[in-house]
Amino acid sequence: MTAYHLLTDPQRQAEYALVKKAYEDCLQQNLKLNMARGKPCPQQLDMVSDILNVVVTPEDCVDNGVESRNYGDVLGMPSARAYFADLLGCRKEQVIVGGGSSLNLMYDMISRAYTHGLLHSPKPWCREEQVKFLCPCPGYDRHFRVTEFFGAQLITVPMLPTGPDMDRVEELVKDPQVKGIWCVPKYSNPDGYIYSDETVERFAALKPAAPDFTIMWDNAYGVHEFSGDWVPFPDIIEACNRHGNPDMVVEFASTSKITFAGGGISAMAMSEANVAYISKLLSVQTICYDKVNQLRHVRYLKDKVHTLEIMKKHAAILAPKFQKVGEVLNRELGECGFAHWTEPKGGYFVSLYTMPGTAKRALELCQEAGVVMTPAGATYPYGVDPQDSNIRISPSYPPVEELEKAMYVFCICLKLAALEKIMGMY
Amino acid sequence: MTAYHLLTDPQRQAEYALVKKAYEDCLQQNLKLNMARGKPCPQQLDMVSDILNVVVTPEDCVDNGVESRNYGDVLGMPSARAYFADLLGCRKEQVIVGGGSSLNLMYDMISRAYTHGLLHSPKPWCREEQVKFLCPCPGYDRHFRVTEFFGAQLITVPMLPTGPDMDRVEELVKDPQVKGIWCVPKYSNPDGYIYSDETVERFAALKPAAPDFTIMWDNAYGVHEFSGDWVPFPDIIEACNRHGNPDMVVEFASTSKITFAGGGISAMAMSEANVAYISKLLSVQTICYDKVNQLRHVRYLKDKVHTLEIMKKHAAILAPKFQKVGEVLNRELGECGFAHWTEPKGGYFVSLYTMPGTAKRALELCQEAGVVMTPAGATYPYGVDPQDSNIRISPSYPPVEELEKAMYVFCICLKLAALEKIMGMY
Repeated sequence: MTAYHLLTDPQRQAEYALVKKAYEDCLQQNLKLNMARGKPCPQQLDMVSDILNVVVTPEDCVDNGVESRNYGDVLGMPSARAYFADLLGCRKEQVIVGGGSSLNLMYDMISRAYTHGLLHSPKPWCREEQVKFLCPCPGYDRHFRVTEFFGAQLITVPMLPTGPDMDRVEELVKDPQVKGIWCVPKYSNPDGYIYSDETVERFAALKPAAPDFTIMWDNAYGVHEFSGDWVPFPDIIEACNRHGNPDMVVEFASTSKITFAGGGISAMAMSEANVAYISKLLSVQTICYDKVNQLRHVRYLKDKVHTLEIMKKHAAILAPKFQKVGEVLNRELGECGFAHWTEPKGGYFVSLYTMPGTAKRALELCQEAGVVMTPAGATYPYGVDPQDSNIRISPSYPPVEELEKAMYVFCICLKLAALEKIMGMY
Repeated sequence: MTAYHLLTDPQRQAEYALVKKAYEDCLQQNLKLNMARGKPCPQQLDMVSDILNVVVTPEDCVDNGVESRNYGDVLGMPSARAYFADLLGCRKEQVIVGGGSSLNLMYDMISRAYTHGLLHSPKPWCREEQVKFLCPCPGYDRHFRVTEFFGAQLITVPMLPTGPDMDRVEELVKDPQVKGIWCVPKYSNPDGYIYSDETVERFAALKPAAPDFTIMWDNAYGVHEFSGDWVPFPDIIEACNRHGNPDMVVEFASTSKITFAGGGISAMAMSEANVAYISKLLSVQTICYDKVNQLRHVRYLKDKVHTLEIMKKHAAILAPKFQKVGEVLNRELGECGFAHWTEPKGGYFVSLYTMPGTAKRALELCQEAGVVMTPAGATYPYGVDPQDSNIRISPSYPPVEELEKAMYVFCICLKLAALEKIMGMY
């Protein structure tokens, strides 16, 4: 096959007829496949369901003298704080353990910044004339939405295979209205990039104009390798401390893709000065998070070493799915020349870049054929990809056979949208 | 014994010597007793710990086709919504089920009002010149703190045995800056009063000047009788609807004192228009609450009838403690004439009114003797009881023998503080 941009007119007509026919065949199948979200699959959930059996008696509920079933310990079970410290490579005094949702912890952090300000805020963000937030793109829609929700102006920063374009970030933080940045430093959502050591260092060494500039470091996939061994990753909190910016970063993590999605536990880690500040505010909000579930997780996951063993079992389930995605993409699009995609070794996504101006149309076609993907544009602020090119693929949930079907339909739709575009049909 | 205000000088001197001696004996005992908070006791927690055994296999985790272990259903497990609807006497479409903390749901509601406004808000409360909030007193310190935290001016409304003074409430809501009121309608914290049917009707019929005036109806003790049968209670949501104020109330509840404190589940109930509005905002905040724990609760508590059976078992543990409190108070203070207290049949507290101007001093004396109580003033906005008289007693946690000791010390301290006051010693 020839790359689409090299096709002669008759070749293009022939290809269009073929692809159109293939798409019509897809429509006939009345498919109903969903790859919209990075959800663990039932097999993964079953694999970790022994967690339901580790805290079952009254005796099980007490951990080193701490009662998990009663009020108290707003910062979390001490053993759960120690667990996340081990996982993240920081100190347990730097950790606050929350409920099932790390997104909620992030929301609360931005919400507090808005209503009361952060540790070094001259005033609450709701009293600022304008707050701007940096959004490395493509990125995670739910991150962007949180800051948009609180009225921040979202500023796009290009993502490179080494992480956000740090030249651009260093330039942008000179603006005192720029109050923070969203980061998924390991297996970035959706590209699956790991920030380079240099990128992490440059983050830690930032000299922002805003005294309360905050790096929202969402380490969502810190132990989520599905191919190869665990990749060590620097502790951003210590790095910031070393550069004289101890309070500039808040790190987030959860077990949503280690145990149960939404039924896991979450954590945030930061300087002890930040912990002291936040815990004061947190104590107005709640008496404590669910410590029974925290203890359940500690008993089941034990420590980083044991968690990595469980992640190997997740990998065994996920790897064939990512393999299948790569396989179908290569087979169907490899020679078309209008699309490229990432091949991560961890995380939950593959990021695909199709012919500019055709992503939205392609996903419309997909939807008509019963295949639901993350909406085009979702990976950009305000849901608008200026190139209309990036699409996030979430292979984790469907079984491999369904995934293969869905990916085939997806590729046909990409081709059809590309051909329509080339032929001036929209 | 003679009432303190009738004592002659020599009698007073003699009584002072006696009480002083008794207090010094208390000091010798090096007690360490805590009655500061309404915490369930270990025996209660053990009694309900079978809840840990009702969701233990992968099959257990799916409920009518809804998977509890994965993302989704931001409003909660359908069966959990139905459970709370049964408990509160409203409809399941009116219920959103949350995580372990109903306080957190209340905080989030006020926070959203502050940052974005409620359904009928002309603007977010942070853009209002001044927001005022009504606080029936004595009341719950954590309620008051939430609205204080968001800058509201707290306005005291007297509590009567029938509920808040509704003449006063009806007058105050004519001020458009008055945006809401805190209520614990059944077994009010700390008095243990049940709002009368007339009070509930007058609430539902309020005609506030603020279009977004909101009744924060914290039905924390709706099934928490420890003496006698369950007392039926009107559905405030339906009552508001009947009076043409369908969106004026948000009701809260939790299982913190049914199953585990902080490890239970919480809910809020409101008009469907409010549910629609809140769920839009909620979907920015989180993907979902912990549905596994929601399902665990549904499986264990089943429905209102079964829940009431469990509450009878809690009552069997709690009733002797409340009895003991009444007994010691009667024995030690019954004839002194300077104190009176409530004798509730449910909830978690006894509310005591000692000689005005002596509550703080009495609790100082208590603390020195190793007995920690809820701080004097905690039941009033800003922690200041203008009468310095009300003290909240929380008998639930200590074993009866400890409770008896603590109550004795407490009474001695009340007497000593009263005598010191009468004798002009402070």
